[in-house]
Amino acid sequence: MVSIPRGFRDFPPPMMILRKRVLSKIEEIFRRYGFDPIETPSLEYWETVKGKLGEEAENKLMFIFPDFFSKEWYTLRYELTFPLARYVAMHPETPLPFKRYHIGNVWRHEEPQKGRYREFLQCDADIVGSPYPEADAEVISVNIDAMKSFDFENFRVRLNDRRLLTGVFEEELGINNPFPIYRAIDKLDKIGVDGVKGELARLGAHESLIGRIMELISTRGSFNEISNTFRRIENDKVKVALDHLEEIFSIVSDDRLVFDLSLVRGLDYYTGPVFETSVSEPRIGSLAGGGRYDRLIGLYSGKDVPATGVSLGVERLIDAGLELGIFDLSERSYTDVFIVSVRRENWRYAWRISRILRERGFSTSLDLMRRSQSAQREYANKIGAKVIAFVGPSEEETETVTLYSRDLRKTVKISELIDSLREFLSVS
Amino acid sequence: MVSIPRGFRDFPPPMMILRKRVLSKIEEIFRRYGFDPIETPSLEYWETVKGKLGEEAENKLMFIFPDFFSKEWYTLRYELTFPLARYVAMHPETPLPFKRYHIGNVWRHEEPQKGRYREFLQCDADIVGSPYPEADAEVISVNIDAMKSFDFENFRVRLNDRRLLTGVFEEELGINNPFPIYRAIDKLDKIGVDGVKGELARLGAHESLIGRIMELISTRGSFNEISNTFRRIENDKVKVALDHLEEIFSIVSDDRLVFDLSLVRGLDYYTGPVFETSVSEPRIGSLAGGGRYDRLIGLYSGKDVPATGVSLGVERLIDAGLELGIFDLSERSYTDVFIVSVRRENWRYAWRISRILRERGFSTSLDLMRRSQSAQREYANKIGAKVIAFVGPSEEETETVTLYSRDLRKTVKISELIDSLREFLSVS
Repeated sequence: MVSIPRGFRDFPPPMMILRKRVLSKIEEIFRRYGFDPIETPSLEYWETVKGKLGEEAENKLMFIFPDFFSKEWYTLRYELTFPLARYVAMHPETPLPFKRYHIGNVWRHEEPQKGRYREFLQCDADIVGSPYPEADAEVISVNIDAMKSFDFENFRVRLNDRRLLTGVFEEELGINNPFPIYRAIDKLDKIGVDGVKGELARLGAHESLIGRIMELISTRGSFNEISNTFRRIENDKVKVALDHLEEIFSIVSDDRLVFDLSLVRGLDYYTGPVFETSVSEPRIGSLAGGGRYDRLIGLYSGKDVPATGVSLGVERLIDAGLELGIFDLSERSYTDVFIVSVRRENWRYAWRISRILRERGFSTSLDLMRRSQSAQREYANKIGAKVIAFVGPSEEETETVTLYSRDLRKTVKISELIDSLREFLSVS
Repeated sequence: MVSIPRGFRDFPPPMMILRKRVLSKIEEIFRRYGFDPIETPSLEYWETVKGKLGEEAENKLMFIFPDFFSKEWYTLRYELTFPLARYVAMHPETPLPFKRYHIGNVWRHEEPQKGRYREFLQCDADIVGSPYPEADAEVISVNIDAMKSFDFENFRVRLNDRRLLTGVFEEELGINNPFPIYRAIDKLDKIGVDGVKGELARLGAHESLIGRIMELISTRGSFNEISNTFRRIENDKVKVALDHLEEIFSIVSDDRLVFDLSLVRGLDYYTGPVFETSVSEPRIGSLAGGGRYDRLIGLYSGKDVPATGVSLGVERLIDAGLELGIFDLSERSYTDVFIVSVRRENWRYAWRISRILRERGFSTSLDLMRRSQSAQREYANKIGAKVIAFVGPSEEETETVTLYSRDLRKTVKISELIDSLREFLSVS
C-alpha cells in the first residue's frame, strides 16, 4: 500500500482553502506593518548552520544529507531566523531597518504527534537594524493584530526581558549556571507553583533561594507596579531592561500584553525582550512568540546587527482555531457555479455561459463526464458548488440560465446573469 | 565566505513582490476554471516513485537520501503529477472529475544555468476522471487565458496527439523503434527542416522515409485542411485522434491554438493530446505545456483513470516577461506610506497616525532608528515607499499630516487622511 513519509501531510482542498485564508490574513497584517516578503532556499549547506543551532537540533532534529555528486552536505531548512542572518550577510546592500516577512516550510525530525509535524509552515516577521523598543513594540503589535484578526478573544501576550533575568538571577542572586533554573521557572504556567518549587529543589537550590525566586516570579500586577518593586534592585541590566519594557508597554498600550518574569523561551539567542502568546483554551501551548536577538544576525557578517521579531505558529493557530470553532472546513471548493447541461446538446451553450462567468472572475465548472442531469447535480453538491446553473433546451432557446441554490431559484437573461449570481452568492 | 547551494536562490523583496503577483494571477485563473488547491509533502518515500520517472531522473536528477534513524529513503519532490496520482490513490473518496491545482517547489539536480534552477516552482492544473476532449479543451483554455492575462501577445499553443503519431509513424510507416525519430522531429522548431533531415539520416532512415516524414510534419494550414489530408489514412488511432482534436479545436476556438504534427513532448506517459506554448521572442523554450495521460493515475490505485493537465512554467514566464518588459522589478516594497517624524517628540503622534493607516489596511512604516528627518526621508526613498507623510510640531498641533509624493504635496486633517492618501496612491 502506498503511503507518505511519517509526519508529512497531504492537504485536500477544504484544508488548503482554510490554510490559504489564514495565510492571506497573516500576510495582510505583515504588509500593513510595512514588512516585505523574502524567500530563501529550502536547502542550505550544512556547513552554513553547523554548530549554530544547538545539540538537539543538530544531532536529532535536522534532516542532513549528502549530495551524491559533489559530496557537499545539505540540510533542509530548520527555521527561518538563521537563513535571515545569512541573507543579510549576503545582501549587504539591503537598507536598514530591514523589515522582512518570510512564510515557508521548515523540516524537523520530530516524533510526530497531534500538532507536531516533520514539515510545517513558519510565518516570521523580523526587523533587522533597530536596537530600540519601538521595533519590539511593532512586532508585538503584529502579534496582537494577528490574534485579533482571527477572533481569538482570550489571548494574552506575556512579556519579559532576558537582561532582567540575567540581572536578577545571575548578578543579584548569584546563580552561576542559570539555564536549568530558567527552564524550571519557564514551566510555571504548566506545572504551577509547587511544581516549580519541586524542580528547583531537585536542582539543588536551598530553601531561602527557592523562596526568593518564587516570590519574584509570582509577583502579579500591572507592569508599573511590578516595575517599582524591581527598580529597588540597583543593577544596570535590570534598569536597562525595565526602561526598555516600559517603552514597549507604553507604545503597544494593550491590556492583553502582560509582564511575566517566569517567561524565558527556550532559544539561547535572545538578548532582550522575549514574548509569547497563548490562549486559555484549548491548552495547546504557545501560538506565537518572539523576541530580540542582537547577536545572531552578525554571525555571518561578523558585525553585530540588532534585530527583533515575531513568529506566528500558523499550524497551531489553525489547530486551535478548528478546535475553538473559529475556523471550519465548510468551504470544500472555490466553485461558485456549476453549470448543469440538461441535455448533451446544451453543452455548447453551457460552455458559452462558462466563458462569460469565468471572464468575470467567477469560479465556474461544467460537465466534463457526459453525465445525466441528475448525476451532474449530485456531483455539484458533492464538491460543494455554491450555486447550480441549469441550461436546458428552453434556456438555450430563450438565452437564459436558471440559477438554483439552497434558498433561491430564478431564471434570468444572460444580460442579468452576473448581477443575479452576485445576489445568489451573497445569500449562499 | 557564506554561500547558498548551487542552483538555489534567495528572493529579495522586489523579486518576491513580482513572483507573488504572477502567482496570484495564475491562481485566479485556475480558480475561475473551477480548480481547487491541494498540497503534498516535499518529501516522498523513494520507494513510491522508484522505477517510474525514467533513468535520467532517477540516476541523475533526483535528490535521494536516507533517513538517519529509520533507514527509509526519501526523495525531494521531482514534479507534481506523480504526487497527484499517489494522492488520488490515497484519497479514493475524492469526487471525479477531480480538478485540482498545485503550486509547489520541485527539486532537480540539473546543471544550473540561465533559467534552470535546482529548486523551482511548478504550477499545475489537472483534471482527473474525464476521458473527453471537453477536459482537454478546458486545460488548454487555462493555458491561453494565463498567457493573455500576462499580456504575452505573440504566443501560440501547438497541439498534437500521441495516437496520431503512433498511427502514422508506427502503424502506417512501420517504424518499430519510434522514440529516436520522435525526438528528432520534435526539434523541427529549433533546428529547422535540414537539421531534422540530418538527424533522421543519422538514425539510419532511408531517403524515401525521410521524404515522407518531412512531408507529413511540414504540412501547414488550418486544422481542418490538415485533418482532411490525414483522414485519407485509414487507421483507427488516426481517426480517434483526429476526432478528439477536432472537438478540442472547436471548443477552444482560438487562433493561437495550432496543429503541429512535429510536437512530441518528452514525457513518455502521454497517451492522447499533447500541447506546448511558446513565444516567438525571447527564444526561451516552451512557457507552458501539457497533455493527456490516461494510464498514469492508475499506477498507484491499480485502476486506470483518465487525466489531462497543464503545467505553467512560471520560472520561465517570469524570465521571459522580464526580458520582454512585460514585468519589471519597480515595486521594491509594498510600503504605501512612510511617516517621517520631523522631531523625536513627534514620534508618538506618528505612531498614532500609523495605527489609523494600518487599521485601514495601508502598508505603513515609521522611523525605528531615531534618525534625523533627512535620514528618514532618504530611507523612505531607498525602500521605495510610495508616499511620505510628514508629522512635525505644526502637524501635531493642528492634528494634520503633510502628504508628499513625486507629484503632489498636501497638508490634510486626520479625518481627510484616508481619502487623500487614496488619491496620492492612485497617481503615484
